[in-house]
Parts: sequence; structure tokens; C-alpha cells
Amino acid sequence: MSQTIEKRDAAPQELRTLYAVVREELVQVDELLRTELTSEYPFVEELARHGFRLGGKRLRPALVLLAGKLCGGIDGRHLQLAAAVEMVHTASLIHDDVLDEATIRRHLDTVNARWDNEASILLGDYLFARAFRLAASLDNPFAVRRLIEASRLMCEGELRQIQTRGNYDLTEDGYLEIIADKTASLCACCCEIGAHYAGAGEAERQALTAFGRKLGVAFQIVDDLLDVLGDEQTIGKSLGTDLVKQKPTLPLIRLLNQSGPEQRAKMVEILSTTTAHHREALKPWLEKSDAISYSKRRATEFVESAATELRGIPDAPSKDSLVGIAQFVVDRRH
Amino acid sequence: MSQTIEKRDAAPQELRTLYAVVREELVQVDELLRTELTSEYPFVEELARHGFRLGGKRLRPALVLLAGKLCGGIDGRHLQLAAAVEMVHTASLIHDDVLDEATIRRHLDTVNARWDNEASILLGDYLFARAFRLAASLDNPFAVRRLIEASRLMCEGELRQIQTRGNYDLTEDGYLEIIADKTASLCACCCEIGAHYAGAGEAERQALTAFGRKLGVAFQIVDDLLDVLGDEQTIGKSLGTDLVKQKPTLPLIRLLNQSGPEQRAKMVEILSTTTAHHREALKPWLEKSDAISYSKRRATEFVESAATELRGIPDAPSKDSLVGIAQFVVDRRH
Repeated sequence: MSQTIEKRDAAPQELRTLYAVVREELVQVDELLRTELTSEYPFVEELARHGFRLGGKRLRPALVLLAGKLCGGIDGRHLQLAAAVEMVHTASLIHDDVLDEATIRRHLDTVNARWDNEASILLGDYLFARAFRLAASLDNPFAVRRLIEASRLMCEGELRQIQTRGNYDLTEDGYLEIIADKTASLCACCCEIGAHYAGAGEAERQALTAFGRKLGVAFQIVDDLLDVLGDEQTIGKSLGTDLVKQKPTLPLIRLLNQSGPEQRAKMVEILSTTTAHHREALKPWLEKSDAISYSKRRATEFVESAATELRGIPDAPSKDSLVGIAQFVVDRRH
Repeated sequence: MSQTIEKRDAAPQELRTLYAVVREELVQVDELLRTELTSEYPFVEELARHGFRLGGKRLRPALVLLAGKLCGGIDGRHLQLAAAVEMVHTASLIHDDVLDEATIRRHLDTVNARWDNEASILLGDYLFARAFRLAASLDNPFAVRRLIEASRLMCEGELRQIQTRGNYDLTEDGYLEIIADKTASLCACCCEIGAHYAGAGEAERQALTAFGRKLGVAFQIVDDLLDVLGDEQTIGKSLGTDLVKQKPTLPLIRLLNQSGPEQRAKMVEILSTTTAHHREALKPWLEKSDAISYSKRRATEFVESAATELRGIPDAPSKDSLVGIAQFVVDRRH
């Protein structure tokens, strides 16, 4: 589990440069995370650290801090909230990974896989609770309410995505609505609470929230594109799993939409088999179609639209960082 | 999953009689739960209802309401909190059951089992989030803080219990500390928030909290005793699973403590094998020892001590109900 997370969250240099404006604060957030993960029970602490043994890319904490900086300044509450959103993110990754790991280990050691699964589910629950506790410790209940609501939407989005499995009639709009909940709601929340606790006005807060949401949508489109496309070596996690799980994501939706009924039927047939070679089988079609460039373009549009949301806010280094991060989200190769 | 929950939570007549003082309010809580579980997405709603398709014994909502009634009276906030604690309880049961179900279904249909597991993990997360959202919707953040903290302790207790697997040197005190977190923290929270939102003074609130905690400890001791002892037919769930999972619970701890080194070594050897017949193999020893009567006695002591906590509070029908429920917890056969 930790290995999957570790690799998929490795923080690239470009991103660290973009974080320069809040570098010091991010260090404090990491310290706070370390403190938050201590437990009087060594086993619990070991597990929690295991979940965080990643030095992740800290995208969500950076959003909280930069939104705060842009809207009036950061204080101790931002640090706490930045730690809390990272804990929610990690908790959700741990739960996402439970099943994948179960498959891998099933052939090795079932008892061990069971133990790990059980511990992973509980560890995720534990981290959710600790994240909410941290957010609820602030005087003002705004943050904990927003964070709980974002978590609810994440789950709802993921549940809805489960239901779309094998449904190759899912529309692009349907897909976008799902990823807005599944992924973008937490990014939106990060920017919103960052702005709120900096004393942002209503318009400013809404602009930051919309920025976060669009950035989150773009992020997920690129994630899904990399799953179909990417180089496992570079990305460091199993790819093509969306296809195996019969999860219709944007490149596939586009490919199917652009295909004639006969071709489409063939593709759906391939996708409906349980073989793990969907990616290879679909590759020639994908390369001939505009599915890849189209998906990339859609992500770029969301990122451009995200930047536009910040137009009304005076320029500042923190604004440049936010826009740069949004751009990074589309350009990244992993 | 739902089947397990359904059976283990069936509400017996004796308990319903004890709920008479808050019967009307419990009906309102059930209505609120139904409303809370609606979703604009039919699949999400179906899953959530699936988790609640039980008409459970509603022990935790009853504790919130009765504590409220005893300490000054129930209002709308108690109803919301009663619904919230039931959602937390259900969420934790759903996560508990994920792995058990995975085993059962693995031989039938792996894809289906995977799907269900994934949905179950997300459904649990979703219900936790909805529970916290409901509690956070109150003006006063006391309840959401307490509920989040109880959930954290539940996870921590369960994680610690995982670590005790196969550790037959676990002491009775170590065991009691674990179940105080794992099970009693939520019961304590129910009584505490019930009292708090009824305007209870500090002493009263502490008395109710201690009552809930001791009741919760007794509840878990009896649960563990039934797992070793009980009649699967009556209880309607697989038993002996604690032994299979090498989870040292009170009857076993007592049995091992009362045995000589040679006998003890034999027992540990049996327990360490992966066969599923631990219960049969241990039965003669259990019957010769005082492990069963001792465990029952310890549970009774906790329940008596729980009742003593309420001594300072004037008599009332709601107090009788609370004491009656505590007694029921020890007397129950399932």
C-alpha cells in the first residue's frame, strides 16, 4: 500500500519551485503532520507513519497555504488545515489502495493480506477522524464543515464511479460531474478554507473555490489520461487499471463517441473481457483517434478557466504559484 | 454484509420495552435516518439503505435520548445526534464486515466480491462523513468534536486489538483498555452528548459519560463471551471468529491465566493452528474452568458500577430505562 502511494505522490522538482512562496510554512505543516501522527500506541503510530512514508507532493496543503497567502495572509490555522487536508487525502488513498493490494498479495500470503487489509481500512478511518479532529479544533466550525462535506462528496463521487463500470454510454458531462465530486471537491475545499481563514470576502472566496475545483477536474482528467497512456516505469504504479476495472474515463468516452457503431461494438467487446490486455488492444485505435489530444485539450481548458477565476484578484507571487501549479497539473508526465 | 448486520442487530422485545420512555422520539430518529440517507444518486441511496436495512437495536440512539431526557429534556438536536451516532455505529460495522464477507464470497464470485468490498469501504466512509456532517450542523461544536473523538478512539482500539492477535500474554487490564476505546468510547459519547445538549451540569455529564463507558465495556465483554460460547443459531452470525483470528478476549485470558504452564502451552498450540475447530478443542477446558462465569461476573460488575454512577441523579423513568438497558446488556443471549 505505502509503496503505491509513495510512488504516485513523489514530489517533482518543478512543483517544489512553485511552492517557494510557502516553503517555510510547508516545512511547518510537515512537522505538524509528524506531531499529529504520534500515538501513545507504537503500533498505531507505526501504521500511521507507514501511510505517510512518502513525502508526498503536498499539493493540497500548498493550495490551502497559497490561497491563504493570496487572500490576506497565513496564520496557525492555515497550518493546521493544511495538515488536515493532507490527512484526508492520505486516508482516501489508503482506502483506494486496499483492494489493489489485496489482489497482488492474494497469491502470496492470504493471512498477511487480510491483516493488512483490515489494518488499512482502520488506518484510513483513523486518519479521517484525526483530520476532522484537527479541523474541528479551530474556534470557527467553517473548516470542519467544509472538510467533512468535501469528504462526503469524494465518497459519493467514487460510489457513483463504481456504478458506471462497464457503462460505456457514460457521457462526457456525466464523467465530469463524477470527477468534480471525487477529486475536485477536496481541491476546491483547500482553496476555500485557505481563503476563508485569511479573511477573504465572499467574491474572493468563491473565485478561489472555483479555481480549486477546475484545477481538481483538470488533475483527474490528466490522471485518467496517464492511466491509459503513460509509461509505468515513469509513473511507478500499475496502469491501465481503469480499463481493467471497466471504468469509462475521458479518453475512452471520446474514442467511443468518435467511432462508428461497428468499431464501437468491437471495442466494447474487448473492454468487456476480463483479459488484462485492453491497453494493447485499444492502442491502435487510440493512436488513430483524437481521444488523447482531445483529453489533453479539455484538461488545458479547465486549467485556463481556473486561472481566469483569479483575474479579479491583484497579482502576487502566491497567485503566480497557484496558476503555475494548475499548469503543472496538465504538463506533468506522472 | 447487510445480512450479518441485520442479524446481529435485531432488536429484541425486552429492549423495546426499555425504550418506552423515548419510543416516539426513536420513531422520529428513524425518520431522520431515512431522510439523511436519501441521495440524488439512486445507487448511492440504495447502498446506504442496504447498510441500514436492519431496523437495528438502536442502542446508541436510545442512550442519547435517555441521557437527554434524564438531564433536562430532549430537543431537535438530540434527534439529530441520535441519528448521527447510529450512522457512526453502522459505518463501523460495515467496515468490520468487509473482510469477513470477502472470504465468504471469494469462492463464489471474485469480481462481485471485489465490487462489494470497494463499495463497502466507500459506503462506510460516506456514512462516517454524513454522520459528522449531521453533528457539525449544530451551532455548538461540542457534539461533532466528541463524535469525531469517539470515532478516532474506536479505530485506535481496533488497531490495537489487531496488534494483540496471537499475543496470549495480553493481560485482563490490557484487554479492558482496548475495549474501552473500541466499543465503550461511542457509548460514553452517546450519554455525554445527550446530557450536554439537555443542559446537564459538569457532574451530571461526567456521571452519564462514566455510565455509558462502563455499559460499553460490559457490552463488549458479553459480546466476546458469546463469541466463545454462544449458539450460532440464536445469535445469527458466525461465532468463534475471535478464536480463529487469534484475538485474546476475556474468557480466553482468564482460562490461560488459571491454567498450569503445560496446559497453557497446549492451548496456545491449538490456538496457533489455522484450523477452525478451536472452539470444540477448547470446550472441555473452558467448561472445567471458571472462565465463563468469571467473564460474566466481570460484565455484571461493570454494569453494577455503571448504575452506581447515576446514584446522584434523581430517580426518573429514563434513569430506570438506562439501568434496565445496562442490565439487558449482560443478560442478553445474542
